[in-house]
Amino acid sequence: MTNFDQFLSAAAESMRESAIRKMGSVLAASRDVVSFAPGYPSEAAFAWDEFRTIADDLLSGRRESVLQYGATRGYRPLLEVIVDLMSKRAIETSHERLVVTSGSQQGLDIVGRVLLNPGDVVLVELPSYTGAIAAFRAVGAELVGVRQDADGYDLDALSSTLARLRSDGRRVKFFYTVPNFQNPTGLLVSLAKRLSLLEWAERHDLLIVEDDPYRDLYFSDVTREAETRPLAADDGHDRVIYLSSFSKTLAPGFRVAWLNAAPALVERFEIAKQAADLCNSGLGQQMVNEACRRGVLERQLPRLRTHYQEKRDIMVRALTETLGGALTWELPRGGFFVWARLREPLDGDSLLPFAVARGVIYVMGSAFFVSGQERQYIRLSFSSPSPDRIREGARRLADAISDARAERTAPASPPAEPPSR
Amino acid sequence: MTNFDQFLSAAAESMRESAIRKMGSVLAASRDVVSFAPGYPSEAAFAWDEFRTIADDLLSGRRESVLQYGATRGYRPLLEVIVDLMSKRAIETSHERLVVTSGSQQGLDIVGRVLLNPGDVVLVELPSYTGAIAAFRAVGAELVGVRQDADGYDLDALSSTLARLRSDGRRVKFFYTVPNFQNPTGLLVSLAKRLSLLEWAERHDLLIVEDDPYRDLYFSDVTREAETRPLAADDGHDRVIYLSSFSKTLAPGFRVAWLNAAPALVERFEIAKQAADLCNSGLGQQMVNEACRRGVLERQLPRLRTHYQEKRDIMVRALTETLGGALTWELPRGGFFVWARLREPLDGDSLLPFAVARGVIYVMGSAFFVSGQERQYIRLSFSSPSPDRIREGARRLADAISDARAERTAPASPPAEPPSR
Repeated sequence: MTNFDQFLSAAAESMRESAIRKMGSVLAASRDVVSFAPGYPSEAAFAWDEFRTIADDLLSGRRESVLQYGATRGYRPLLEVIVDLMSKRAIETSHERLVVTSGSQQGLDIVGRVLLNPGDVVLVELPSYTGAIAAFRAVGAELVGVRQDADGYDLDALSSTLARLRSDGRRVKFFYTVPNFQNPTGLLVSLAKRLSLLEWAERHDLLIVEDDPYRDLYFSDVTREAETRPLAADDGHDRVIYLSSFSKTLAPGFRVAWLNAAPALVERFEIAKQAADLCNSGLGQQMVNEACRRGVLERQLPRLRTHYQEKRDIMVRALTETLGGALTWELPRGGFFVWARLREPLDGDSLLPFAVARGVIYVMGSAFFVSGQERQYIRLSFSSPSPDRIREGARRLADAISDARAERTAPASPPAEPPSR
Repeated sequence: MTNFDQFLSAAAESMRESAIRKMGSVLAASRDVVSFAPGYPSEAAFAWDEFRTIADDLLSGRRESVLQYGATRGYRPLLEVIVDLMSKRAIETSHERLVVTSGSQQGLDIVGRVLLNPGDVVLVELPSYTGAIAAFRAVGAELVGVRQDADGYDLDALSSTLARLRSDGRRVKFFYTVPNFQNPTGLLVSLAKRLSLLEWAERHDLLIVEDDPYRDLYFSDVTREAETRPLAADDGHDRVIYLSSFSKTLAPGFRVAWLNAAPALVERFEIAKQAADLCNSGLGQQMVNEACRRGVLERQLPRLRTHYQEKRDIMVRALTETLGGALTWELPRGGFFVWARLREPLDGDSLLPFAVARGVIYVMGSAFFVSGQERQYIRLSFSSPSPDRIREGARRLADAISDARAERTAPASPPAEPPSR
């Protein structure tokens, strides 16, 4: 029998399965589970009819680029669309600063491969997005977290952490941040803090990786669009590598996102993407291109904001009514997530088997921490389930919490079985 | 001004732009160039009408999985299709041995990341596919080539090279091979050699990475289907990691390919793909799935074999008639390429600027060599251009060769400008 362990790379040894994706497998394996786990956009809100018309036009047009290999940087008309879209976000850009990626996950992966050596340090918000953690760890980087306040990362903590790392001789490459409706906390970084961060990066000669998938999904009852102004809009020194995506606004199934950075870096990103997968799907890119050019995206955005704001309200109301104070949270001002704290002695890790047994799943908060043993939180995604399912999920979660509390006073161990329903 | 070099990883420093992709940029920048460079399938042969119907059905059906995120391993019904397709290639497989990748390029990239540490050695055929070279070098591996005979890799050279490397204390992980209509040589490895290679890998405790994109495109005038039997079909010890793709048979624009290996390895490949891009396009996978289930692929294959065989004949005839012995080659028995040797003192590198000036491009053979200074070859791809363009390209190539010869007897330097037409 072949012994495969001897063939594995050190990188492979350090790769870990995503907690979010693992929950996806639980979901796929079971018939009736309410999923608050993956941050999936709502398929009910996709522009199905417009996509159908566009696909028909593209394939009847027999334009070879739809089905052929394409340029690694991306389909040129789509790059033009992205330049326009960026200017609406107050970011002036051009073709030589852009590369289309297969979802922002590929953008994170490419950034990691081009910038990180094993042992390099990446500073991240605590908690931080698991996909970014996975991508940076896959190239052997160490992630060091800095705590967040109600308006995002703590700049003093950032400075003192950097000073400590540098005095230890560590090489710190960049700070990874999701300033708009952060994954998992939903936090919105204040504009003042954004400007301070840019100044801080310049002063300390660091790069910033700004991941911005939720920017268009602000909730107008509590957030003005101006509050979502990206770091990249005020970056005078090319310190910011900016990532955004069509996955949350048009659909993830096209796998179209983009990276924006200084041309000297984008050249490297392009070569890394060449080696990684040659190019994005022509069909996916042209579907997105046409959806933008025909105004589908523009028409979708206000609808999506309303759609997700309503779902947020439904979830928050259901949690309030059903859970009677067992959970606390800040009202999300945009995005897909409620980041909820469990009252002790319960925690997100130990509650999970009870939740699975009751037919509801979430992502345990501990998955988003790169250090410390913070287990009090759970991430609840309201984006994908229907209103009824959100309410049903809240009831099941309440039952799971009751079960877990009852279990604490009884001698038996928690159920370890996969969900029975 | 920010100094970006200080932020680059060692891996980024070793990444090189693909010679094939670079030729693609020349092509995109110019109006009238005959391209024998990239191995693009013929868009005239795509099943446009069937794809149009399938897209319409998929998008009107509003099945969420078409546009949503999906499982990292791949869309389950597509995995079933691949299991069937593999059994037609005499490879018994199952879901736990498969992962769908975004083109075989991503398969190569993932294999490299999971198996290779910096400094590890990969054995390759000489010459070998540039995409594989790029993927393995991107993780810091060293590539060592072994020469080929008319029926493929030289087993004695493979053994002596391995012995030498091991006595030097080098860690050799696998042998990368394209047994069917190799890129770039078009060579078909004999069945006897295939069996010997499996035995050799078992004896020396090595893995084999078998890249098989052209298997279905054998030319029946000179090749029987039985001669394309994959190594993986006779692999009793899970030594073979097998890659294949729908890019050459349905279309590259879907970015759908697959990896087949021992479950213990596929688990790792799955985690690496998670970090790399989460999942393949739902739309792309379901287009391919339906095309297979509706018999489109099966109907296409005999057509494609005829299509490419005819184009091979047209190219070979045009080269024979136009070039009058300036080039020599073996008749390709399948696939996309004529691997042609230039008569000295000309070589593929120094001819290129003359060819570009005349409006024809190819890939210089030196790009496919990982060692040595072999510059006598050029790779001419007959797959994509129309018959008329193939003939026109051969004429231009003849003119370029005349120009280069004339230049050798004159004092001026060769033209370095981009193509004027």
